[in-house]
Amino acid sequence: MKPKFICNIATVAASLSLAVPAVAQDIQHDTEHYILQKQHGERWAAEDSELDQRLAELREANGGKPPNIVYILIDDMGFGEFGMPELNKIRGGRTDALDQLAKEGAAFTHMYAENICTSTRVAMMTGRYAVRTGMELTKVTPPEGVGLNAAEITLPELLSDAGYATHHIGKWHMGDIKEAYPNNQGFDYASFPMHNQVSYSFLTRDAELRSITTSFTPESLEENPYALDKSFRLYDWVTQVEGERNSPVREWGIEPGQRPDEQLYIDVNEKFQQQAIESLRSLAAGDKPFFLNYWPQIPIAILNATPDGDCLNANCGRWANAMTLVDEYIGDILTEIDALGIADNTIVMVMGDNGPMKQEQPDNGYAEWLFRGTKGSALEGGHRVGAFIRWPGVIEPGEIFGDMVFIADLYTTFARIGGNMDGIPTDRVVDGVDQTSLLMNGDTFGRRDYVHLYEVDSLKATVKQNMKIHWPAPGVNPSMAGIYNLFWDPREEHPLKRQGVWSGTAFGRMLAHHNQLKAKFPDWEPARGTPYEDVENIRPETKAMVELWKETYGDARYVITGVDAAGN
Amino acid sequence: MKPKFICNIATVAASLSLAVPAVAQDIQHDTEHYILQKQHGERWAAEDSELDQRLAELREANGGKPPNIVYILIDDMGFGEFGMPELNKIRGGRTDALDQLAKEGAAFTHMYAENICTSTRVAMMTGRYAVRTGMELTKVTPPEGVGLNAAEITLPELLSDAGYATHHIGKWHMGDIKEAYPNNQGFDYASFPMHNQVSYSFLTRDAELRSITTSFTPESLEENPYALDKSFRLYDWVTQVEGERNSPVREWGIEPGQRPDEQLYIDVNEKFQQQAIESLRSLAAGDKPFFLNYWPQIPIAILNATPDGDCLNANCGRWANAMTLVDEYIGDILTEIDALGIADNTIVMVMGDNGPMKQEQPDNGYAEWLFRGTKGSALEGGHRVGAFIRWPGVIEPGEIFGDMVFIADLYTTFARIGGNMDGIPTDRVVDGVDQTSLLMNGDTFGRRDYVHLYEVDSLKATVKQNMKIHWPAPGVNPSMAGIYNLFWDPREEHPLKRQGVWSGTAFGRMLAHHNQLKAKFPDWEPARGTPYEDVENIRPETKAMVELWKETYGDARYVITGVDAAGN
Repeated sequence: MKPKFICNIATVAASLSLAVPAVAQDIQHDTEHYILQKQHGERWAAEDSELDQRLAELREANGGKPPNIVYILIDDMGFGEFGMPELNKIRGGRTDALDQLAKEGAAFTHMYAENICTSTRVAMMTGRYAVRTGMELTKVTPPEGVGLNAAEITLPELLSDAGYATHHIGKWHMGDIKEAYPNNQGFDYASFPMHNQVSYSFLTRDAELRSITTSFTPESLEENPYALDKSFRLYDWVTQVEGERNSPVREWGIEPGQRPDEQLYIDVNEKFQQQAIESLRSLAAGDKPFFLNYWPQIPIAILNATPDGDCLNANCGRWANAMTLVDEYIGDILTEIDALGIADNTIVMVMGDNGPMKQEQPDNGYAEWLFRGTKGSALEGGHRVGAFIRWPGVIEPGEIFGDMVFIADLYTTFARIGGNMDGIPTDRVVDGVDQTSLLMNGDTFGRRDYVHLYEVDSLKATVKQNMKIHWPAPGVNPSMAGIYNLFWDPREEHPLKRQGVWSGTAFGRMLAHHNQLKAKFPDWEPARGTPYEDVENIRPETKAMVELWKETYGDARYVITGVDAAGN
Repeated sequence: MKPKFICNIATVAASLSLAVPAVAQDIQHDTEHYILQKQHGERWAAEDSELDQRLAELREANGGKPPNIVYILIDDMGFGEFGMPELNKIRGGRTDALDQLAKEGAAFTHMYAENICTSTRVAMMTGRYAVRTGMELTKVTPPEGVGLNAAEITLPELLSDAGYATHHIGKWHMGDIKEAYPNNQGFDYASFPMHNQVSYSFLTRDAELRSITTSFTPESLEENPYALDKSFRLYDWVTQVEGERNSPVREWGIEPGQRPDEQLYIDVNEKFQQQAIESLRSLAAGDKPFFLNYWPQIPIAILNATPDGDCLNANCGRWANAMTLVDEYIGDILTEIDALGIADNTIVMVMGDNGPMKQEQPDNGYAEWLFRGTKGSALEGGHRVGAFIRWPGVIEPGEIFGDMVFIADLYTTFARIGGNMDGIPTDRVVDGVDQTSLLMNGDTFGRRDYVHLYEVDSLKATVKQNMKIHWPAPGVNPSMAGIYNLFWDPREEHPLKRQGVWSGTAFGRMLAHHNQLKAKFPDWEPARGTPYEDVENIRPETKAMVELWKETYGDARYVITGVDAAGN
């Protein structure tokens, strides 16, 4: 595959009037990267040799093991939503563990996630914009019958190949078909909900009784004789499962005939936390370096997240309240890492997956704030997230990284640190840039000054340095588009006047480059299949639901009498 | 006067169904204070005895001197506008001195100023809402012929009486009549511009040439034959003056025939900084404790603020650029304080006077951000300001005060710390609450959980704890008003639904209390007079301008053929 790749680089570089980089890079990056590569490649190469040396020394100091990685992803934690003591006072929040993490490690001010749960998680796992994987549509209402393609080379696969033990605990949200399960995507062990938090909270009898959702449970649907399509709101989905690598999974915490309710959600979240702690202990006891991927379901708490509904902070909105609870969970994990004596060789990273959820403002205790826009939007408020990392002895305590980082960069960076850059596939575009130099050399050593921001499959905005363009509708000249100076106007409320003209043209060139490469490497399709295969103890009611689903949609795709999901 | 005051308290308290406090308080506070007094008075009294003891010990340790106070007020520095390292990275700002101050001392997250320059400065000097003094209208276009009433008892007067040496350097903005000059309002020495920054920047030939203002200078006005009223845009105002206490002042830095321009503004700002440093040295060399009140004109920089116009930070908007310059000035002052060996007994406080200036967004490098609303508005963005204080050995380094503080509280607090609570007048309402306990005991020891927010003379909003009401038009029931939870929604974008109903009624009671007291203590009038009296070296062109002014308006008031400014 590599010869083919080198051809691609040469072709793309030629179309940009850029020479092929002196050192052939195996990874097919997005085009914009090669512009920076051309200007900074020599310095980066020198830095990289020195970093390889330091990483080798670190491994040597730790019995030959590269660092463990504990990665915690928090729902909807937009930038400034807790984790900064001054801002906590304004929001009435309390996040002692995040405050501690920021003090002992570093805070990112320009961390861009994708703007919605599934997409961010996909980009983290694959190093690619979610749109390239076909996974850009968030999967909410169960069942879906789609999921992450087995052909994706995930971060846990890379780290496994480098000798890591890999566990996933908590939210996954990348599909309910077996090839998409985390234990089939590189994790040695995984315990995860089959869907996301919506099933536990919106789609329950408890939610109906509190006027949050209506007509979802079978008994309330009975009262609507006009609801002909019984597959529109399917009930009795698979809740949470666990399993070993490439083996069937088992549903846990629910009995046949039992319905998900608020208490189940509370219990399951506590159980995930226990499992994370247990994983930490068993992984630390093993011989291998490890990757623990813990994605809690809280602070999403559409009903209560604490057993008694009590306030844990002055704010006490449901999300904000649960944020303190999840912060306590994070604190317990930090304490456990210390107690296990592995803190020195363990990278701990905590970050948000996207901005706040529009629908729950302000009653859940938050609202759009430092940035405009919410989850799902290409405004900064959709993409900019809180992010903290601790790596004792490497990252200076209290450091603040002002460099731009995109979620996909973590894939490449952790692959580098874990020692498997060679495993990164070269037959597709990998958007993740290696940011090891930023982590190890500090602020201003980042290797990215641009990011493309998608809403589903539409490119809606591009950031380059402190300038941002909101892409206009097709046929409108980018010089006439809304262009913003993010230093001056972080909330994107004042389109620039004179400065817009030159940068519109410059942005237009960036767009052309991005699209040229897309023509060569078209976006993938997600995998499709029958939901819930390999759930070995599937409940009878779930089985019946799947039968109805199969009857309606066929057993492998959204195909009904010749019309598939794409409308063909 | 005290017997009269005690009657007032009793009457007001009776109207509120509150008992007279056990310990008669001499200061006539706003009514809301007595509610807190009733609930916390005993604890406060106990704290106060202990604080008196600690203040006495501090004086003893410093040769009998109470602490020096260096107070620096920065234009338009809304909360989050620099001084927080993470947020600086987002704004491309650089404020090393403020960062240092926050690390060595404390940052306030709930500091409320008034929402416009003059009002904030008046509240700081008098301890009263500006509206009570009649000074709520910002004085911009020179000449004005109004100013701060000599009957106000200012903070420097209180501190002088307590044995302090008092200097004022920089912006004053409380009137161009002699009784309002800072050297006639309690400062032993003052060097100040007679008006504000607008005269130096908007109203110049340089500004006309850059299309910022038109038709202000006499030569460009000549081209408009329809401009009949020659007093509408007067030119040749007094620029900057200096003088000793209760003595005439001298204009400096400008010669007869010279016009203010960008260079003059740059030179004058540098001179103020030099004067501040010189004051610091002479005050430190004296025997007395001192109060240095330094109110720089930058970062207001409608033209350039740096001699060469170069960028001092990544943002480089004019205001943001000048913010780094003024931060360097602050750094030099901190360095000088250290060099003089007085750091241990010197309180240094730096804060903003109101939110950002709407007209200059975003090109000056900032825009509304954490809060909605700008200078002049009762939205949080008008009133909430950045504020930092250092008091070595007393304030815990790195502390963050989440308590609500109103600018007028500084009057009372500094009077307490300076040892002259008895000098605070008791024949008028003093809104300032003593916040010494907050400074000395730390976060949560504040004595205020409410503030009334005026726009000019209209009460537009009231904050109580984390709830805020936007007062509706007269005749609308407050239960129907927009009520916001500031923890959940700091930008006041989501009026509450159910929570509004109870709090509207509770806010209505607060308003009634506030107005009851106003009926007893009506707002004052500002002083009026002829501008520029006692400027001993007044330029001939200024003299001619004053003659035109007097011819039009009379020599003491806005009275033209029997119609005064109030329309009578």
